[in-house]
Amino acid sequence: MDEFELIKKITPSSLSHREVEIGIGDDAAVYESKAGYEEIVCVDTMVDGVHFLSSHSSPGDIGYKALAVNISDIAAMGGYPKFYLVSLAIPSGWNESAIETMYEEMNKLAKLYKMDLIGGDTVSTNGPLVITVTVIGEIEKGKVCLRSHAQPGDVVFVTGELGSSSAGLALLLEKISTKDEGLAQYLIERHKRPKPQIEAGLICSHYERVALNDISDGLANELNEIAVASRVSIDIYQNMIPKHAELHKLHTEWEKFVLFGGEDFELVGTISSQDWERFAQECADHQVSVTQIGQVSQESDIKVFLLSGQNRVPLEKKGYQHFK
Amino acid sequence: MDEFELIKKITPSSLSHREVEIGIGDDAAVYESKAGYEEIVCVDTMVDGVHFLSSHSSPGDIGYKALAVNISDIAAMGGYPKFYLVSLAIPSGWNESAIETMYEEMNKLAKLYKMDLIGGDTVSTNGPLVITVTVIGEIEKGKVCLRSHAQPGDVVFVTGELGSSSAGLALLLEKISTKDEGLAQYLIERHKRPKPQIEAGLICSHYERVALNDISDGLANELNEIAVASRVSIDIYQNMIPKHAELHKLHTEWEKFVLFGGEDFELVGTISSQDWERFAQECADHQVSVTQIGQVSQESDIKVFLLSGQNRVPLEKKGYQHFK
Repeated sequence: MDEFELIKKITPSSLSHREVEIGIGDDAAVYESKAGYEEIVCVDTMVDGVHFLSSHSSPGDIGYKALAVNISDIAAMGGYPKFYLVSLAIPSGWNESAIETMYEEMNKLAKLYKMDLIGGDTVSTNGPLVITVTVIGEIEKGKVCLRSHAQPGDVVFVTGELGSSSAGLALLLEKISTKDEGLAQYLIERHKRPKPQIEAGLICSHYERVALNDISDGLANELNEIAVASRVSIDIYQNMIPKHAELHKLHTEWEKFVLFGGEDFELVGTISSQDWERFAQECADHQVSVTQIGQVSQESDIKVFLLSGQNRVPLEKKGYQHFK
Repeated sequence: MDEFELIKKITPSSLSHREVEIGIGDDAAVYESKAGYEEIVCVDTMVDGVHFLSSHSSPGDIGYKALAVNISDIAAMGGYPKFYLVSLAIPSGWNESAIETMYEEMNKLAKLYKMDLIGGDTVSTNGPLVITVTVIGEIEKGKVCLRSHAQPGDVVFVTGELGSSSAGLALLLEKISTKDEGLAQYLIERHKRPKPQIEAGLICSHYERVALNDISDGLANELNEIAVASRVSIDIYQNMIPKHAELHKLHTEWEKFVLFGGEDFELVGTISSQDWERFAQECADHQVSVTQIGQVSQESDIKVFLLSGQNRVPLEKKGYQHFK
């Protein structure tokens, strides 16, 4: 593959952000940030065989998801994404058109948020495809939503529904099956093309003290991160957690999808109980689905508890294990 | 390897930049940029077996170089580095202490420039080690040194000496040999631990119109990039190019090291002839070695020419081929 030709093809013909002085085409990108705003930066790496299977996902799916998971990290801070840089280690088996498709699908997703591709690197590798995306976003100064913001009495909420992505993965790997093809397609799409919750995150940033995490490694894991960072205890009600109406038909242990299955890339957070109703209304006004699933308790223990009927059991940090 | 433990170990106990609101430890890093400055961002990926050989370079060497090449990109814009993020795809054969050493050596280099590690990702891979570093720097608004800045009549200069890094690589791979152990050690060090030319770049940024590139892919390649970006023609004098005094003893084709051997990570640039003397003096005052090697010609052809005795031949873009 000719790197020079590829760069020409992927270089945007115009940029959404006029504050970019130099995008692709010099040693580095140069841009001016907005006064009164802070920069948000994150990077995530995905490896073929670990985070995705190129045998099961198209180049477009892979590109989409690599960018989406980073946009989701910006959402989890309450910010808005501006720029992205893509670094690819490409095995010899991949042809030029597959790589171009990957960039095209990233570009389509990026356009939804007016994001600009401003740099990156493409190299060859003797190993599997490795894609690393860096995303830069912004947020009004002082508005960032941190994991450490939770306080006793806060309402705990999630956006959307949980467990669909990991159920989709299980279907993809034929660990479970269903005769409902429409359902299978829907769940697999949730796994391959998660939607970053930028709008929900932006609404969160309007409130004074929201703790926020995106659900990449499963609800249990993300709640424990908030509990540890905020030094609080959290109570979650099993029957309040939103999930797809058909999920329970797929597997006897479907609740594991909901609690420990990762990659839904929904947001989980806490907000003061005084703000909750106004927040829920603002979400509804913007067609953002949000559900209360529990509250931050008054206990001094730094733990997450799952309440189900008469039971109250610790919900341990147990992450998503990909293809292990 | 426990990712959580690793993150704890590599998280800096204090930061040089007080404008960082959040470093490692949430979904993304958050910082405020300085008024009147622009942000500079770059990313580079290095793969074991392609950009380095873990059989020949220590984990510390690999970490050092992965960060250094990105700092060099910031230098090539005339900027100053502030932050870095490290993404690692780690094969099962690598142990925890090797990974820690890699971060420690990056940290030592970063400290020279008061840079802070503010994020990253560590994942497992079934393939070779892949390290991707993102660096964010800054530059006073309007001072950036672009490849497109060259104009007819400009002086063409380089910092330091050229060819040492690729001679070091040839020694490392036993393609050439020398009995002078001190020389061998020096050249291999130049290959493994290139010094980013931040100070030289900063001096360049003081002048109105400097075209600048770092020499990652060889002098011929970088000069052609400047010629194309600026739509100018460049004349280079072979006997003016600075190189190590002993380089010619190593191989009959030593000039290939100088012209096409990459990874010296020196800077090559152009500056108006009116500014040249003042610039050379400022470099000398700061112990920055800089040498005139030619000039931007008045010809309309977009080409680079090498002048040697009575000969004037086009110097083609011919990049560094790593281990091919």
